Parts: sequence; C-alpha cells; structure tokens
Amino acid sequence: MMMMNGGGGGAKVLPEAFDPAAVAPEPVPAAVADLIGNGAGGEEGKAAGGGKRGIVLGRNVHTTCLAIEEPDANDEFTGDKDAYMAGVLARYRKTLTERTKHHLGYPYNLDFDYGALAQLQHFSINNLGDPFIESNYGVHSRQFEVGVLDWFARLWEIEKSDYWGYITNCGTEGNLHGILVGREVFPNGILYASRESHYSVFKAARMYRMECVKVATLISGEIDCADFKDKLLANKDKPAIINANIGTTVKGAVDDLDLIIKTLEESGFTHDRFYIHCDGALFGLMMPFVKRAPKVSFKKPIGSVSVSGHKFVGCPMPCGVQITRMDHINALSRNVEYLASRDATIMGSRNGHAPIFLWYTLNRKGYKGFQKEVQKCLRNAHYLKDRLREAGISAMLNELSSTVVFERPSEEEFVRRWQLACEGNIAHVVVMPSVGIEKLDDFVNELIEKRSTWYRDGTVQPPCLAVDIGAENCCCALHK
Amino acid sequence: MMMMNGGGGGAKVLPEAFDPAAVAPEPVPAAVADLIGNGAGGEEGKAAGGGKRGIVLGRNVHTTCLAIEEPDANDEFTGDKDAYMAGVLARYRKTLTERTKHHLGYPYNLDFDYGALAQLQHFSINNLGDPFIESNYGVHSRQFEVGVLDWFARLWEIEKSDYWGYITNCGTEGNLHGILVGREVFPNGILYASRESHYSVFKAARMYRMECVKVATLISGEIDCADFKDKLLANKDKPAIINANIGTTVKGAVDDLDLIIKTLEESGFTHDRFYIHCDGALFGLMMPFVKRAPKVSFKKPIGSVSVSGHKFVGCPMPCGVQITRMDHINALSRNVEYLASRDATIMGSRNGHAPIFLWYTLNRKGYKGFQKEVQKCLRNAHYLKDRLREAGISAMLNELSSTVVFERPSEEEFVRRWQLACEGNIAHVVVMPSVGIEKLDDFVNELIEKRSTWYRDGTVQPPCLAVDIGAENCCCALHK
Repeated sequence: MMMMNGGGGGAKVLPEAFDPAAVAPEPVPAAVADLIGNGAGGEEGKAAGGGKRGIVLGRNVHTTCLAIEEPDANDEFTGDKDAYMAGVLARYRKTLTERTKHHLGYPYNLDFDYGALAQLQHFSINNLGDPFIESNYGVHSRQFEVGVLDWFARLWEIEKSDYWGYITNCGTEGNLHGILVGREVFPNGILYASRESHYSVFKAARMYRMECVKVATLISGEIDCADFKDKLLANKDKPAIINANIGTTVKGAVDDLDLIIKTLEESGFTHDRFYIHCDGALFGLMMPFVKRAPKVSFKKPIGSVSVSGHKFVGCPMPCGVQITRMDHINALSRNVEYLASRDATIMGSRNGHAPIFLWYTLNRKGYKGFQKEVQKCLRNAHYLKDRLREAGISAMLNELSSTVVFERPSEEEFVRRWQLACEGNIAHVVVMPSVGIEKLDDFVNELIEKRSTWYRDGTVQPPCLAVDIGAENCCCALHK
Repeated sequence: MMMMNGGGGGAKVLPEAFDPAAVAPEPVPAAVADLIGNGAGGEEGKAAGGGKRGIVLGRNVHTTCLAIEEPDANDEFTGDKDAYMAGVLARYRKTLTERTKHHLGYPYNLDFDYGALAQLQHFSINNLGDPFIESNYGVHSRQFEVGVLDWFARLWEIEKSDYWGYITNCGTEGNLHGILVGREVFPNGILYASRESHYSVFKAARMYRMECVKVATLISGEIDCADFKDKLLANKDKPAIINANIGTTVKGAVDDLDLIIKTLEESGFTHDRFYIHCDGALFGLMMPFVKRAPKVSFKKPIGSVSVSGHKFVGCPMPCGVQITRMDHINALSRNVEYLASRDATIMGSRNGHAPIFLWYTLNRKGYKGFQKEVQKCLRNAHYLKDRLREAGISAMLNELSSTVVFERPSEEEFVRRWQLACEGNIAHVVVMPSVGIEKLDDFVNELIEKRSTWYRDGTVQPPCLAVDIGAENCCCALHK
C-alpha cells in the first residue's frame, strides 16, 4: 500500500478535485435499526420520567441519548442547527445547576471558580508520558504538574529527589498504578485488601492476574488487623502487597496505617517483603490536617499514595495525584523513543488542563486554607449526624471522617433527588466544602417530613442497622 | 475509631471553635530539601534555555516547575497573589499560542472553537461507571456520551443493540480495554502485534501477564502477514488475540484487516478462536471516508475498535472512543451497587466534558464535514511529500495516510521548534485539518534553508533511509 510516486515535478497546491485515494461517494453510513426504541429519537431528560432505570446486564439501554444529526446542506444559511444546539446546551446547563444544588452523596467539592482559566480551553494541552521528561510536543503543562506533585510530596513527607509521580485521570488510575508498581516489585506477591476497599482494587487484581486475599473489616469499616494477621500467617511464603484505605468509599473509615505495619512486622514480614499502597481517594488530602489521625507519610515503609483531585480540591473533571518512590518506578518504566519520553504512567496521553486547575486552587488556598475547610467539614458532619440522631434516624460518623452513614431512605425518588450513594440498608452523605449548614438543614427537614409518610401506617418498620453501623448507633425498634 | 456519641441533645450549628478531632496546629509541612536545584525556585520556561533535556532514567529532573507558594496572610488585601497568578497564566497562554502555531509532528487537530461550551466549565461533570446505566450522581453527560457512541457505532456498522462502549481518556485506554476484553474472552490466548504497534499494546501485555508475539512489518509499516502466518502456525494450540493497526504511530501504515482475517482462517483459526482489536487511534475516523481503504466494520469478525477523540476531531484534552460487542462485555463486567452501575470500564470516574466536546463537533461537521477534511488532509500530505522530494529530501507517504515520513532533521532545535516526532533516522509530520498549505510551506522553506547549512561542508552526508522507507523513496547519495 505504499505510494511509489517518484515524480519530482513542481509541487503545487493540489486542486480541490484532486483525489489521492478516491473518497467514498456516500460518506453517511446506512442507518442501523433502532431496536431499543429510545435510541436515535431520544430526547434529553427522557429518562427522568421513565421507569427504565436500574442495573441491566448485557444490554445497552438508551434511556438518555442526545442523537447526533447530520447537518443539512443549508444549515449555515438558516442557523437552525446552531439554534438547536444552543437550546440543548442551555437546557443542559439548567439541569446541571439544579443537580449541583441538590448533590450530597458523592465526595466531590462542587464549589470552585475557575473563570480565570477559561482562556485556556481552546488549547489541546496534553502531557504525554513522564511529567519530568519533556516530550517534543510543546503544548503541555508539565511545569504546573510538577509544581502540584511537589506540593503533595511535601504533604506526604518525601524528598523531591526521592519521589516519582503524575497527575492521573482519577482515583482508580492511582490505585491501578500503585498496585501495578507493587506487583512489579513483588511479581509473586499476594494482594491484601479489606472487603470495604474500593472496587477498583479488586478490578486491578483481576486485570493484573494477581492472587488477592480479602480481609474482614470492623463495624467502623476499618480493616480488621486480627483477621489480617491470620491471613498473613497463612501465606508467609509470599511477599505482601497491601491496599490501605485512607477513607473507605462507603463509611469513610481510615485504616490504621501504623497498626497495619505493626501487624506485618509481627507476622514476620520484613520491610523488603511488603509493599503498601495507600488509597487516599478523599481523605488522603484531609488526614494531614487532623491531628489525631495516623499520619500518611513516606517516612513510614509505604510504597505509594494516591488521592483524587476532583474530590476535596474540586475540579471540573475527574483527576488524581499519584506519588511513589523513585526507586520503585524503574521496575515499571521503559524507554519510548517516539515521545523522547520514558513512560511509567498507565495512560500515555494525559489531560493537561487538570494540573492547571489543581495548581490554581492549591496556590490560592494553601495548606492553611485546606486546614480551615477540613475543620469546617468535620464540624458540619457532626452537625448532620446529631440532627439525624435527634430525629430518631440511625446514623454513624467515624471520628476522622466527614462521611455520615445513615438509614437508607426507602423512597428511590428521594435518593435520586439528593444523589445519595447507597449500599444495602445504608446511605451516606459526604460533607464537602460545598455542603453547608443550610443545605444540610434542607435535606434533614425534607427527610424527616418524607420519612413520616414512609413509616406512617406501621406496616413497615425502619430497618435495623446494628450489623452495619453498630447497635449503639442504631435507632430501630429494638435498639432505640 | 468510631464515634460513640449517643447523645440526642438539640443539634445546632457548631461554633467556629468546635474541635471534632483536634486539628494539627501547624498545617504547613516542613520543607523538604531541594536536591535537584531547579526545583522550588524554578521558573516557567527555564527548560527552553537549558541543556538538561533528554531521557534520564531513575531521576525526576525538575527542569520546569511552577512551584506552589503558601499564600501570605495579607494576600487578600494586597492582591499580590492574584497578580502573580494572572501574570503566570498570561505568559503561559502566550507560550501555548506560539507552540500551537508551530506544531506539526503529533496527530492532533488543534483547530477547534468550543467557546459555546465555556459555560459548562464550572460544573464537576463525571460519568461514573457504565454510560448506559444511570448512577445516582446527577451531574453527568451520559446523554451526550451515548449520542457520540451511536454515531461511531453507525460509522463502524454495528447495531445499537449489539454494541457496548464508552468515551475513554485517550487512545491508550482504548487499547488497554480492547486487549483486556480479548484476554477475558480467551484467557490463554496469545497477543499478536506488529512491531510497529503503539507501545501501549506491549504495555498491556505486560500489565495483563499475556504471552505476546511480535510480528514483522513491511517497509510501509504494515504487518507482514507471511510472518504472521508462520507465527500463528507455530502456536496453533492457543487462541489468537490480534492488535490490528489502523494507522501506525510512526508511518501511518494501515494493516490490511481483510488479509489478517484471511491469514487467520488459512492458518486454521476459526472465528471462535480469535479476537481482533483494531487500534484506530487516528485513522479509525479517517479510513471510513477513503474508498480504497479496507473497511473497519463490525460486519467482519472483529472484537473492538478504538479511536482517539483529540486527534482528528480535536478536543482540549485527550479522549477516545471504544466500541466492542455487547456479548463480549459480560466477560468483563461486574455489579457495583455503590454506583448503582455496572462497571466494565477501565477508569470508573470519567471526564464528562469530553463527550460534550465530541458531541458538539460531530453535530456541527457530520459525516460529510469529516469527509471534506479527510480529503483536504490527504491532498495536503501529498503536497508536502512532493515538495520534500523535489528538494531532494527522502520522504514517503503511505497511500491511505496523511503521515509524511522523512529524513530526521539533524538539528535538535529545529525538531523541537516544529515539534516533530522522531524515531531513529526518520521524522514525521502528520497533516491534520489544522495544518494548511501555508504552514507546510513555512516549514519546508525553513527546512531547506537550515538543511543547506547542516550538510554544507560535505563532511556529513544526509542519512540513507532505504531500510526505513525503501530505496525508491530515498534521496541519499547512493539512491538518488
């Protein structure tokens, strides 16, 4: 398929009609049948009214779809298309505003103002490969990325010369990277993770074909180090790779890093036979500002820490920070001449805007600003828990956390309206900087009002949550 | 670490001084030593002048770093910090503008205008988990994402009910996903990839612990199906997972999909014993509009196709589209109640802005708009190749490609200025919609002028590229 054109005739701008590789006459592919019904003709918001929602395996249900229509020949003249798109975007923006206002369940700080950065949106900023090695592609933001990494290295107490890291696409990429580094360091190591670890940890084990041992948890959601010890002792012949949760997804429980290390040592694992990855998705950034919390620090024998950037910091798109030790990274890296870059990342091409968002916020708030916000969130979380308990609603709040776990509201519509994350009988609210007292009051008042109707006639009782959050936090008929 | 607060006393807004978990008194961590020198005090653009550039393994060289400084107590009053940051951003923007103007080597379409979407930047849009299943998090853009996926499904000829897919973070994630699906379908399958495949393919093999066989290539860069057949026959006992390149990274060579399938069949591999992933990073979107190109279509026995969104379409950040067959995806998926979502993606949290960018451009341009742009790029690529050859510079252009491969400029400064991607003795320019005749003329004129000085005194000769691009395309002393 190589062009054997040896002609050296005068090069010129080729005419419009030039046909280097005859172009297909009809570029619009034949329409494929719309078997689902809601597909091509679907409209924004259709799902809101439908009852189709839910988990459906093996089907791609088109409940919401803004179909792409081929432009008409005279679109430029009529402006119809532009008007249509402007309308879609305006409606969408309205929905986002409303949805942002009523959001409580996910640990995202929705309160940010990046107006000063809007000027950068029309650049295609891509940090290819390694943040510390320039590639030939000039439209990058490495200088911001390295600034952000240095800030986190300082937070987690590792020297500039000793760490390696990068800005990831999300917390999951951080976990995928940390566990991969662990596996490369200990190819036959066993991955230990508490059963309340984020699902990406178990996904990683499957992807990487690693042996994985699930460890039990306490009612708080923390790893149960007695069970951990039993499992370590049963597998003494193989190195240990541990995922430590610095804030679990559901209960915001913080694994006791010092106890994990002590358990490893007591079980006969010397420091050269284990690797600890700290999944600090949300709390990795909050913990350093809480005095009583076990410190996340590279002065301890840990291998990597990851944290999400769109959570406590707040960012328009998911992103994260991954820091590991320089001496681990060579196990993973390889030279790639194409980019003039060594690539030890999971994704080669990386969003160059995310580091600038993070850089902007870190610069403005600083460590002291984050400290204030952490304090506020913990205060407000206590307020929420107290109000729930006062209303006779089962609720729990871990000491180091801003995640309030409580009785799952029995009405799906209410759950969706407040965008609560649920699991079994429990739901949670993650109190972020964007969640103030007023919003919490609105929420609790509405919950109390609705709840009185759910359990009015007494045929259904609120669920017992003793097994989920402990009898002392449960307000069910038996435990109250 | 659980809070055992059973008190039901009147909940109230807690005072500012409330201390739920005593906060560390000094939130600013101790500074870590700056061993590299260029670190904390580094300035934007420092690298440009320095001679430090290059591949350095096992070190994180802080050539460029915009350090984050803790705000002063009186920053809000003086406005110094705001002024400093505005200055950094203004300088950065200027650099980006200049770098964007002189960009030729990477296949990114830098020509886009998403002004209409700037209004969405202050929302934290996150498409958690599966695009087809709503999660409780309301600030998402699934309706746009599914619209984009449907468009690509139609382009690659698969029914809406038969495909599954999602918008990825980049082409690499598409390859990681496609190859993972292949491995889940054939757990003991061997991965075959030509040696000119993107490095992410070999990275995937290592991550997934798969047996990987490298196949030779023709001078054009296409897979050598004779060698492929030999290797298949030597491994007849195991299923085959094939990475087919729809445009290689360096030469833009398109593997002949039909010949790959024929080779598999002739080697005794029935359709239930192989899985083909098509890496269509750039050309996956261009090929359908080129008549003579072997069609990428799910009517053929292929398993998945991926394409980058920031390449031909153009997008402020990397992204991509991944489409696979619905009946393959169940091998990979698992239920995750936490998100009320089934997660068969690699990254759980996904950038919700990227689908809106793609939706916007696809809607505006349509299939016909892309056809025109593909035609223009192919025309301009021929123009560039002809001008180079006319000037006595070795150059090659594959018939179905807009990637012009030529003699690597011997001056590193020139390579960097035009942001050329290089490998060994060759460099390339990828002619994208943002690369017009005028820019190409500027480039060629400058190259001719500079080149005359590089080889002036005759002590150094331009390299022979016969082995890279064929004797008929080589203009070295021996072959011209």
